[in-house]
Amino acid sequence: MRAAIFRNGEIVVDTLPEPKPTAGQVLVKTLACGICGSDLHARKHAHHMVELARHLPGRKPMDLTRDVVFGHEFCCEILDYGPATSRKLNIGARVCSLPALLTSDGPQGIGYSNDNVGGYAERMLLSEALLLEVPNGLAAEHAALTEPLAVGIHAVAKANVRGDEVPLVIGCGPVGLAVIAALKLKGLQPIVAADYSPARRALAEKLGADIVVDPARKEPYATWAEHAAMSPEQKAARPPLQAWRPALKPALIFECVGIPGLLQQVFAGLLQQVFEGAPRDARIVVVGVCMETDRSEPTLGIMKELNVQYVLGYTPDEFAYSLRLIAEGQVDAASLVTATVGIDGVATAFADLANPERHTKIIVEPWR
Amino acid sequence: MRAAIFRNGEIVVDTLPEPKPTAGQVLVKTLACGICGSDLHARKHAHHMVELARHLPGRKPMDLTRDVVFGHEFCCEILDYGPATSRKLNIGARVCSLPALLTSDGPQGIGYSNDNVGGYAERMLLSEALLLEVPNGLAAEHAALTEPLAVGIHAVAKANVRGDEVPLVIGCGPVGLAVIAALKLKGLQPIVAADYSPARRALAEKLGADIVVDPARKEPYATWAEHAAMSPEQKAARPPLQAWRPALKPALIFECVGIPGLLQQVFAGLLQQVFEGAPRDARIVVVGVCMETDRSEPTLGIMKELNVQYVLGYTPDEFAYSLRLIAEGQVDAASLVTATVGIDGVATAFADLANPERHTKIIVEPWR
Repeated sequence: MRAAIFRNGEIVVDTLPEPKPTAGQVLVKTLACGICGSDLHARKHAHHMVELARHLPGRKPMDLTRDVVFGHEFCCEILDYGPATSRKLNIGARVCSLPALLTSDGPQGIGYSNDNVGGYAERMLLSEALLLEVPNGLAAEHAALTEPLAVGIHAVAKANVRGDEVPLVIGCGPVGLAVIAALKLKGLQPIVAADYSPARRALAEKLGADIVVDPARKEPYATWAEHAAMSPEQKAARPPLQAWRPALKPALIFECVGIPGLLQQVFAGLLQQVFEGAPRDARIVVVGVCMETDRSEPTLGIMKELNVQYVLGYTPDEFAYSLRLIAEGQVDAASLVTATVGIDGVATAFADLANPERHTKIIVEPWR
Repeated sequence: MRAAIFRNGEIVVDTLPEPKPTAGQVLVKTLACGICGSDLHARKHAHHMVELARHLPGRKPMDLTRDVVFGHEFCCEILDYGPATSRKLNIGARVCSLPALLTSDGPQGIGYSNDNVGGYAERMLLSEALLLEVPNGLAAEHAALTEPLAVGIHAVAKANVRGDEVPLVIGCGPVGLAVIAALKLKGLQPIVAADYSPARRALAEKLGADIVVDPARKEPYATWAEHAAMSPEQKAARPPLQAWRPALKPALIFECVGIPGLLQQVFAGLLQQVFEGAPRDARIVVVGVCMETDRSEPTLGIMKELNVQYVLGYTPDEFAYSLRLIAEGQVDAASLVTATVGIDGVATAFADLANPERHTKIIVEPWR
């Protein structure tokens, strides 16, 4: 079969052996697979990804001298069942799965693995136990957005929203947009979102942001503060020793800048920037997956009594919920897709994604 | 009046003008005032303390070319009332107060201020509105421990304890011991505590630690894990994708190392050490007030989905609650006091506190 392969630091097209399903596995045709910022990061900073994997128990790090097929945001069609499967879904059924294979050694990743081919290949293997049937009629390229939406759903779940917070989303790439959609579902208002790109700000509004801000023109935290003023009743109810503090509602800040591999110069010391801008008692959720070693000052965290919640991934329940949200039209996932390409277009798509004005999510259709 | 004064980087004894109470203020005699790790830090790293104060809105940083009298953990006796006071308490009444003066410009600190003399002086000024009467019979040197206990009560309150966590307290100085006492009141069990000093470990047990560990002999996180194993029922109830993870109860880690000014070599990269040792999903409460700029890796935070809560100070309610706890004998504050000194003994006491085997809390009695 054909695949776009990560080999010697580049994306090349070549053929690979046909995958053969073993016990509990299903052979599927890849219908659609999103290109993730992490894939771009992995191509440029593969050794960092290997280092990350060392911190995940049971996750085998990539051997960079061997082929890897990226792609962990996929929608597929069932072609064949392996042994020891219950075959509940029909051949031809459309399915999603979180990017993991269940093995006797525990779950293994799909997409950053030498053993398990990801979605930039014509065919791949999934675990039957993890399959979710795509509700009738939902386009494969939209079902493939389940994974990035689940990242946002999970980040907002980990934030333990009480309902009185005013959120600020920093960075409106796919992760930030998913966070905005998840915040909208929680009913938080107003949602403030910041991005340098006009196209991304327009998308943020489409997905639920009430206020968007261009950090080049105005400080996002200042904009946030304008929209987070306490009501006169809340202001009056504060104890005397707090009455001299700015009368602001609780801040919930999502750091979603995402792909520092592309923009490391700009975003060095990113968390420190958030610490400097954040108001007192702010809760900060760090959703940027690939942040490098960073210098931060606990002093500011202490003085402001900040809370930092680091998040990664999602639960199986959150993944299934995300697919339902897209299928029911509760989240306008379609608006994120800016292009589709075949296997031969993957390398170019990686380069094109550097321009946030042109692209948000490019979908690979390996069958084209 | 006589005072131990911070002047040109040293603690010297000299006389100062008698303080005169203005509107809403009370003149008090200082009966007892604890020496805090922050005072030791301030003497060696005064410029850092000035830097900290810049981040506290309404807090005027110290002018280091002028005299400062430290001391913010005090118990006093009312000598005289200023104008515009309600005089509810009798002259001679014993009182505590959180270390702040209410002014028309908002609260000002007592103890790190050129304007407001702290507890290492024979007399000082307090705000009538913040006075708490010491319940009859409680010794002044024990009432003076209200402030450090409130730090622990606040840290545990900010941790949002659910009841199923197994806590690990790193560092058993006065702050760590206060955290242990507060955890005991919450009913958490077992409480695991780590300190290099045998004397401090013995105190930790006295205040409620169930398991103590010497980091020189055994990794505190390994000891924690031995006492945090899930029950067979909890283990069986986990979803399949989590079943391969270590079956541990939720971790609640308190970083209470406290005075890095004395031990900066040892504790450089302290938060990073906690990140490395912490189990997945751990919540980390950073109570060490004086941490310098530190290098930490968000990568580990993300991979483990850690939560970091920075804390500082306490609320007026927590302060009043702490005084009640000591007065009712619910917290054995007396066991923390290892010496009392007069004004002439403050400089020596600062040096003596470097040895955790000999001293935990030294109380200054300026009237001696």
